[in-house]
Amino acid sequence: MIRIGALDERTARVALSRLGEPGLESLRDAVARFGAAETLERLRGGTLTLTGVTPSRFDARTVEEDVRKAERLGARVVIPADAEWPRQLSDLPVPPLCLWVRGPIDVGEATERSIALVGARSATSYGSQVAADLAAGLCERGFAIISGGAFGIDAAAHRGALAVDGATVAVMAGGIDRLYPASHSTLLGEITRTGAIVTEQPPGTAPIGSRFLGRNRLIAALGCGTVVVEASLRSGSLNTAGHAQTINRPVAVVPGPVTSMQSAGCHFFVRERGAELVTDAAEVAELVGRMGFDLAPVKRGERRALDDLEPDERVIFELLPLRKYADVAALAAASGLDPMTVRAALGILSARGDAVSDGLDGWRKAPADTRRGR
Amino acid sequence: MIRIGALDERTARVALSRLGEPGLESLRDAVARFGAAETLERLRGGTLTLTGVTPSRFDARTVEEDVRKAERLGARVVIPADAEWPRQLSDLPVPPLCLWVRGPIDVGEATERSIALVGARSATSYGSQVAADLAAGLCERGFAIISGGAFGIDAAAHRGALAVDGATVAVMAGGIDRLYPASHSTLLGEITRTGAIVTEQPPGTAPIGSRFLGRNRLIAALGCGTVVVEASLRSGSLNTAGHAQTINRPVAVVPGPVTSMQSAGCHFFVRERGAELVTDAAEVAELVGRMGFDLAPVKRGERRALDDLEPDERVIFELLPLRKYADVAALAAASGLDPMTVRAALGILSARGDAVSDGLDGWRKAPADTRRGR
Repeated sequence: MIRIGALDERTARVALSRLGEPGLESLRDAVARFGAAETLERLRGGTLTLTGVTPSRFDARTVEEDVRKAERLGARVVIPADAEWPRQLSDLPVPPLCLWVRGPIDVGEATERSIALVGARSATSYGSQVAADLAAGLCERGFAIISGGAFGIDAAAHRGALAVDGATVAVMAGGIDRLYPASHSTLLGEITRTGAIVTEQPPGTAPIGSRFLGRNRLIAALGCGTVVVEASLRSGSLNTAGHAQTINRPVAVVPGPVTSMQSAGCHFFVRERGAELVTDAAEVAELVGRMGFDLAPVKRGERRALDDLEPDERVIFELLPLRKYADVAALAAASGLDPMTVRAALGILSARGDAVSDGLDGWRKAPADTRRGR
Repeated sequence: MIRIGALDERTARVALSRLGEPGLESLRDAVARFGAAETLERLRGGTLTLTGVTPSRFDARTVEEDVRKAERLGARVVIPADAEWPRQLSDLPVPPLCLWVRGPIDVGEATERSIALVGARSATSYGSQVAADLAAGLCERGFAIISGGAFGIDAAAHRGALAVDGATVAVMAGGIDRLYPASHSTLLGEITRTGAIVTEQPPGTAPIGSRFLGRNRLIAALGCGTVVVEASLRSGSLNTAGHAQTINRPVAVVPGPVTSMQSAGCHFFVRERGAELVTDAAEVAELVGRMGFDLAPVKRGERRALDDLEPDERVIFELLPLRKYADVAALAAASGLDPMTVRAALGILSARGDAVSDGLDGWRKAPADTRRGR
């Protein structure tokens, strides 16, 4: 059992999470001044009173239970002192006290090059297709896709990332044990196995309406930029875009038919809020990528980045995984080419900087930075 | 027969039109210095030589024939000295020498409040619908619609204007007797009867490719602003938009699906050429209308400008013509309301400034400037 007075910073932050809703400036200031453990003691001792914070909610057993519950789910608590803490969260007016994280990827590392891809729950098939294509294209350029796991655009974005073996992070409005929406358990399960599920809410917290607004600020902060694919004029994704602008992150929207209410919010954000208009992954990458590096080619017609590859080489390049390694036998089987042709193609791709080997028999796509054919 | 040395300014400009293609800076400068009649004499006498001008093409009979041919078609020649000359043409680097005009409207007056509405020939049904709606909405706000009479967006724009009894002007690339495309003879005939057909080319001139580029500058100049509804990356309508920007006229585009090649040119113009994005007629009117007058309401959901009218009043308002007058009997017949109800509705509309009477029994919509319900 955790004894009062013996709480370390991590446990104290978990405990403080239970005493009020996220986003309290007064609590942020106290923790900055006293540290989490002392803030908790002062609150409990009555020598510190903060609006919105209810010290009587503290229960050492609950804190212990929270941590045990998370451990059972394979979740970890990440705090600012950890290497995994996403540095971008410090841009928020009130950063989270801690993050509950499930999944194999390092959230701090993944979000260093990331895009928040959000939009309407009631997306059209056009919007869903564009969201999936953008997510896949951005993953292939080395970006992680941040979204909210919701129906419509969010789900399409996560799926687009998963489809190309890309990194994706779903930010929840409730506890790490309360994945929402329930009917997305397969999708969220897959994200848990290959990406990350993140929340600032302690276990058991219900994903109620107001918590989505607070959650949206995390999505905006975890992305180096935010792209809205479809949004009606009252869409919650415009709230996320607004948060992104508040912390000076680039915001872009995908246009659509002016006759579609699901694009009206996107067009509004271009006209009235200065959002950029983007039409493909290259343009998004340019907007948020490292200066001078991800410059999108100006459109002059259809772009064919792999034009200078021979057909066999292109097939092999397209079959190469992004993050795992595939061996020659597997590539031969998948391509229908004989192993010698596969080896020849890999030689060319490797010389071009488009493929890298694990030094044994395994091959994958080179990181987007160093590739010629993207 | 016209005798040399006796040519007036108008006839001299007609004659000069035959000696070279439009857009010659040298000819513009000579006419500015010597006047058209003396420029012609100097050219014919060999005391003036201008690149691109072939004095030997001059034939007094041809000039006479041009004017007679135009007269037979009911066309007139308009020159800068005329009240009907569109003042906006003087913004062009090289204005036309003269305009050949067919149709009842005063082109100078109509183009004082006008929009060039252009786009792809191979328009989608989405683009055609949006073009027609924009044209109708702009006519209802008192704008004339300028376009090129071509297939696709141009035709939809003209038709949208005609559908609401609005003013529309088609600018041709060939002679006033060579209406193009031939399969648009019904549409162009209707424009001839109610709007205006305009060209700077003398009668008989074939509408060949290069003349469309010159024609596009006239479309851009005759509109107070240019709106591109759909355009591929190589669409000629982007040429028109470029001309408009050259002479500092606002350019706007209508967005569309990023998956549609017919919207790619529009999105390109927003990203790379600083065009405004517009989604309806109110936003276009705001962009080019008189400052502070045509402010489009910021979108917050569906707008219903006639919300404060009673149902009978709204029906009558919607039935009122824009430019002609309708009498009470006609309005009663069209609305299915009895004449007394029609008179009552007209009284309300007139008091609001939404309807005006001809002082007898005729009524029409008030000019958009003074109306409450637009």
